Amino acid sequence: MATIDVPNQVSFLEDAEALRKACQGWGTDEKAIISVLGHRNAAQRKQIRLAYEELYQEDLIKRLESELSGDFERAVYRWILDPADRDAVLANVAIRKSSPDHHVIIEISCTRSPEELLAVRRAYQARYKHSLEEDVAAHTKGDIRKLLVALVSAFRYDGEEINTRLANSEAETLHDAIKDKAFNHEEVIRILSTRSKMQLMATFNRYRDNQSTSITKNLPGASGDEFLLALRTAVRCLNDPKKYFEKVLRSSIKRTGTDEDALTRVIVTRAEKDLKEIKNLYYKRNSVPLDQAVAKDTSGDYKAFLLTLMGKED
Amino acid sequence: MATIDVPNQVSFLEDAEALRKACQGWGTDEKAIISVLGHRNAAQRKQIRLAYEELYQEDLIKRLESELSGDFERAVYRWILDPADRDAVLANVAIRKSSPDHHVIIEISCTRSPEELLAVRRAYQARYKHSLEEDVAAHTKGDIRKLLVALVSAFRYDGEEINTRLANSEAETLHDAIKDKAFNHEEVIRILSTRSKMQLMATFNRYRDNQSTSITKNLPGASGDEFLLALRTAVRCLNDPKKYFEKVLRSSIKRTGTDEDALTRVIVTRAEKDLKEIKNLYYKRNSVPLDQAVAKDTSGDYKAFLLTLMGKED
Repeated sequence: MATIDVPNQVSFLEDAEALRKACQGWGTDEKAIISVLGHRNAAQRKQIRLAYEELYQEDLIKRLESELSGDFERAVYRWILDPADRDAVLANVAIRKSSPDHHVIIEISCTRSPEELLAVRRAYQARYKHSLEEDVAAHTKGDIRKLLVALVSAFRYDGEEINTRLANSEAETLHDAIKDKAFNHEEVIRILSTRSKMQLMATFNRYRDNQSTSITKNLPGASGDEFLLALRTAVRCLNDPKKYFEKVLRSSIKRTGTDEDALTRVIVTRAEKDLKEIKNLYYKRNSVPLDQAVAKDTSGDYKAFLLTLMGKED
Repeated sequence: MATIDVPNQVSFLEDAEALRKACQGWGTDEKAIISVLGHRNAAQRKQIRLAYEELYQEDLIKRLESELSGDFERAVYRWILDPADRDAVLANVAIRKSSPDHHVIIEISCTRSPEELLAVRRAYQARYKHSLEEDVAAHTKGDIRKLLVALVSAFRYDGEEINTRLANSEAETLHDAIKDKAFNHEEVIRILSTRSKMQLMATFNRYRDNQSTSITKNLPGASGDEFLLALRTAVRCLNDPKKYFEKVLRSSIKRTGTDEDALTRVIVTRAEKDLKEIKNLYYKRNSVPLDQAVAKDTSGDYKAFLLTLMGKED
């Protein structure tokens, strides 16, 4: 369930006017910006952008970028975009880093639904005039490339039908590869990148039944091996995205120096989806409410904005 | 341009009635079936199926399957389906063969537009409750699998923008791999499966400029090596689909014993698209009109149907 709090009646014209007013004159009224945008869903934000453009012949996003700064600006920018377009931006930023952030690419390809991932690929092409997979392929190499290109190119079957015999045999295939430390075996990549999520869940369950331990536990994480870490992330994203997001939030906060990129990314991308359940998982796991932990680690308008997206009223 | 001849005004009800009449009583009136279905485009055929179903509570496709037989039945069945659904069937038949027909998979993934290929992937899932890439992966192995899964998973950028510097460097990459006989090099697969068709054409042109010979000529075809043959097919499909189809038609007719599967496939899938240009290429290359060659190699209703699709009136 979503955490954002959206009023029943919204006037896009009034919203556009309020945002214009917040941007005019000396200084910017960040609180006004948060109180509008922090309470509108994706479809409404799109209408507000259109209304703003029509009223003032100005791109709202560009105006906000020029008014705001730092983590707050980045969070507002990511929030205001269409979800698919936002993912395209996140993927592009991740892949163009001097040391590409594979985990963001994996997160986008494995936690979004097949149709959502497709929308991201469309948005990516519209924005960058390249396909997502071609940019991923051009910026990575070796086994990581094989895994990432296969994951972003997937258009998985999204139905309910499961083949239990196949789940059993592919659980064995995965276990054989892990036992032999052949983590980069092409069968491993094939299974993770082509099977439906329901089928993979059945496979991971059979793995646990047969081996008395989960596949994630069998993938050594401490090795620091880049490919192995990517593989673990993929399995966790496919198997239990909410649990995965809880972990990303936990790590982003626990670090010395908060990882604002990860914190913003998870809150912004999940606030309209399942952040409520992720918050519950966070509380269960850490015995501290997520908003309290976020409030402790952030400050100013950035903090106020994240808390608004998390459904906490001032 | 298309070759089928479609009247301006079509009544789906009358068509459904005519087809019902052709199927009733002693024997089937194949000529009537050809004269209706052979002159209707995909959207019209869909409406006729709906009208037939509504009028007679019977699936037109099933009825035709029970009335017709042999090559004619197969051709009518392929023709009556929606293009994306038809490709899904063609791909599934090709991949489930004891010795999978890689060329059909490559043809579908490389000659269809990115959006058309996506529609095929959707239709495949709706029909078979699996993704196309998962079935391709499950029925192939080794280098062929790498190539085929990458090609069917592609959602290429479909715009006009070309990077000429990149075309040059990737022409060199391809040439280096071919020179070293490293045809299965992952760079080769990456380039062919992720780059846009416009970009690939630029790359193949640079290859020809730099090497004074085309890439296809540099890929030895006579070796009988399965992967190399697949690679050649992919390059030809990407580079010049019409020329590729002309060659498939030529081979299907020239064989001792016509290859009806290939002949039907090309005529049925191209009759609404570019069969006119393919016919012109055929005539230029063989000095015999395509319809004459087809007429010589086929007979009966099958022949009459193919000729109708090719725009030849009795």
